[in-house]
Amino acid sequence: MKFWHVCIACGKTTDFHLKQNECTCGRTLELEYDLEFAGQTFTKDALKNRAADMWRYKELLPIENPQNVVSLGEGWTPLVRMYQEEQNYPVKKLWVKREEQNPTGSFKARGFSAALSIANEYGIKKVAVNSNGNAASALAAYAGYAGMDSYVFLPQDCPGLIVEECLQYGAQTYLVDGLIHNAGKIIEDGESEQNWYNVGTLKEPGRSEGKKTMGLELAEQFNWKLPEVIIYPTGGGSGVIGIWNALNQLKQLGFIEGELPRIVSVQEEGCQPVVDAFENGTMFKAQTENVSSNPTGMRVPNPPDGERIVSIIRESGGSAIAVSKEEIKNAQTSFGKQGISSSPEGAATWAAFTRLTESGWIQSDDEVVLFNTSHAIKYLPWDYGEVPIIENYKDMVSNSAGI
Amino acid sequence: MKFWHVCIACGKTTDFHLKQNECTCGRTLELEYDLEFAGQTFTKDALKNRAADMWRYKELLPIENPQNVVSLGEGWTPLVRMYQEEQNYPVKKLWVKREEQNPTGSFKARGFSAALSIANEYGIKKVAVNSNGNAASALAAYAGYAGMDSYVFLPQDCPGLIVEECLQYGAQTYLVDGLIHNAGKIIEDGESEQNWYNVGTLKEPGRSEGKKTMGLELAEQFNWKLPEVIIYPTGGGSGVIGIWNALNQLKQLGFIEGELPRIVSVQEEGCQPVVDAFENGTMFKAQTENVSSNPTGMRVPNPPDGERIVSIIRESGGSAIAVSKEEIKNAQTSFGKQGISSSPEGAATWAAFTRLTESGWIQSDDEVVLFNTSHAIKYLPWDYGEVPIIENYKDMVSNSAGI
Repeated sequence: MKFWHVCIACGKTTDFHLKQNECTCGRTLELEYDLEFAGQTFTKDALKNRAADMWRYKELLPIENPQNVVSLGEGWTPLVRMYQEEQNYPVKKLWVKREEQNPTGSFKARGFSAALSIANEYGIKKVAVNSNGNAASALAAYAGYAGMDSYVFLPQDCPGLIVEECLQYGAQTYLVDGLIHNAGKIIEDGESEQNWYNVGTLKEPGRSEGKKTMGLELAEQFNWKLPEVIIYPTGGGSGVIGIWNALNQLKQLGFIEGELPRIVSVQEEGCQPVVDAFENGTMFKAQTENVSSNPTGMRVPNPPDGERIVSIIRESGGSAIAVSKEEIKNAQTSFGKQGISSSPEGAATWAAFTRLTESGWIQSDDEVVLFNTSHAIKYLPWDYGEVPIIENYKDMVSNSAGI
Repeated sequence: MKFWHVCIACGKTTDFHLKQNECTCGRTLELEYDLEFAGQTFTKDALKNRAADMWRYKELLPIENPQNVVSLGEGWTPLVRMYQEEQNYPVKKLWVKREEQNPTGSFKARGFSAALSIANEYGIKKVAVNSNGNAASALAAYAGYAGMDSYVFLPQDCPGLIVEECLQYGAQTYLVDGLIHNAGKIIEDGESEQNWYNVGTLKEPGRSEGKKTMGLELAEQFNWKLPEVIIYPTGGGSGVIGIWNALNQLKQLGFIEGELPRIVSVQEEGCQPVVDAFENGTMFKAQTENVSSNPTGMRVPNPPDGERIVSIIRESGGSAIAVSKEEIKNAQTSFGKQGISSSPEGAATWAAFTRLTESGWIQSDDEVVLFNTSHAIKYLPWDYGEVPIIENYKDMVSNSAGI
């Protein structure tokens, strides 16, 4: 094997096991690669002859047999320079990474391409995810393409058009009377009985390894000279974790050198556990009550490893910032006028950018990249078809429409 | 100049003029390039080092100064193989070209990137288009990015979410009590007074030149060995025309050889002038009455140069086929179950594919490419904001909300 598990806290390494996601010490396991081996074929020159999708980074993805790759054309999304807006802010260059151009219209495609490719290697045929929206529709699409059955569990107030997508992609779709971690509990409770493979955030290695390609790709698109600041919307955190791991692997491989970018996490006011920990200089704590933000991908009060997110932000010299509903709405309008359709999460990065230029945290010699994670229209209200609303796993089993 | 106008009928060549789109003989002018000159830098090897977007084909696009290019990251869309469905039909290989992965979620991005880049070269600041939907939102986005004012005119029954997009991208948006050619009449009537640049189908060179990149890209993605059949949804026809011109230019450049693919045009029953002319073996005639198909991009009863479309289909040994609403709906479901979100136009290509395999026109040694031109969700019904409904140019002027 050329990759194995490593604990992010105690550093213990173990052989790769599909369903192992937690170290004996209780913290998250990530993947480590034999970079010396990878570097034999993974070179800047070799990349020039590879397909413009995320599988160009195959040496840094945990798939043994390329035939098992489940690909709908994800990755190598456009990096667009915002020439007009650069005139309005004290910034050297401003870029938008258009992750909404991925299959299923969101960055989630990357994680599910990797996760279901791994699942494919192990002959898995039944997959389940809890999600605030885009992860569910991405799973549904990739499972359909791979010939797997998919089960998705979303908070009942999540975007209706994304529920519609899940149905169109043929997923068994359930709305949950609760938040995303309540939806995750249902999958855990049903796991042994249903024999489904849980592709929830950090439950398996594919989601964050797939998102890692955002970091690899950004570095390559910048011709291995990274920008000073990356602004990224944060929910479960696998995007930030993935990008950070990518940049560190590239550093070890000698592809990049010097300071890594400052990572800025953006959340919406009303669900901001990462921001709270960062601002207070404390350990990460789940936000156990008063969750009042909109139902977007940023509304994750209890991410699986919040401490990891906060430590990355600190290590990078970055920041964390909570923006209001109103700021997000205004940012969507600003993006729209520039020809970019932005999800609330993507627009939140613009809102954070304007705040950080006002405060002087972003300076005129900084190059800044905003990650627009999805399309605006996916978040418009929509009455989808009949979907069961459940509270727990028992509800699901007793709901005859479900199984 | 390294490109000039040529008449598709009489062959007369003239110098390039921005607003010239018709020969003195009455037929359409297209662009011809100095291919010997282009071939000095446009080589298969050179392409390997270029960005994965449509501007990699710059020698075959009519822009003098690269700084004028208006790009939101269009082109180099995924080509996805439909492994599962290949088992169900007598076909060698089945591919989907995912044009919905373009900016603004449709293939129209290509045409407007080219058209507004040309407009940019001439300092144009005000642009207008008539459209069944996706062309309008693409114009709106590219105009926003380029800092131009945009005016869009759509039939009042066109997809509501696309109207919403136009508003989000900041276009002056009008609904027209009529069909797409009635909307086009409004622009023509207002042209001198409003001084807007008409980017309607075949009104300027950019739209079909931009779409040409679909053909260039397909050839390159197939490593210059083309598939036997291309199935493409047809409305105004600039897609078919663009792809055909691309393949012929590649042939002249020596990039490809042998038979070109058979081009299949798909329309929806109820608006099928191209299919009628093809089936009857007659000259093209506009469908002047009984237009009863759905409001999609295929509903163009009076394309600017229908005869050109029909002659391409004939020359390629292709076919034209009209499919029903029901077939389109079923095809959207089939695509969805394979993880592909397809617009009615894109789904129509699947419907045509199934018919042509049943009839034996597509055979087991054929490789077939379906063009999925847009996303499914853009066509769901939606109540957008206040938009004026007008009948003619006078209505627009008298509508105070308008100007």
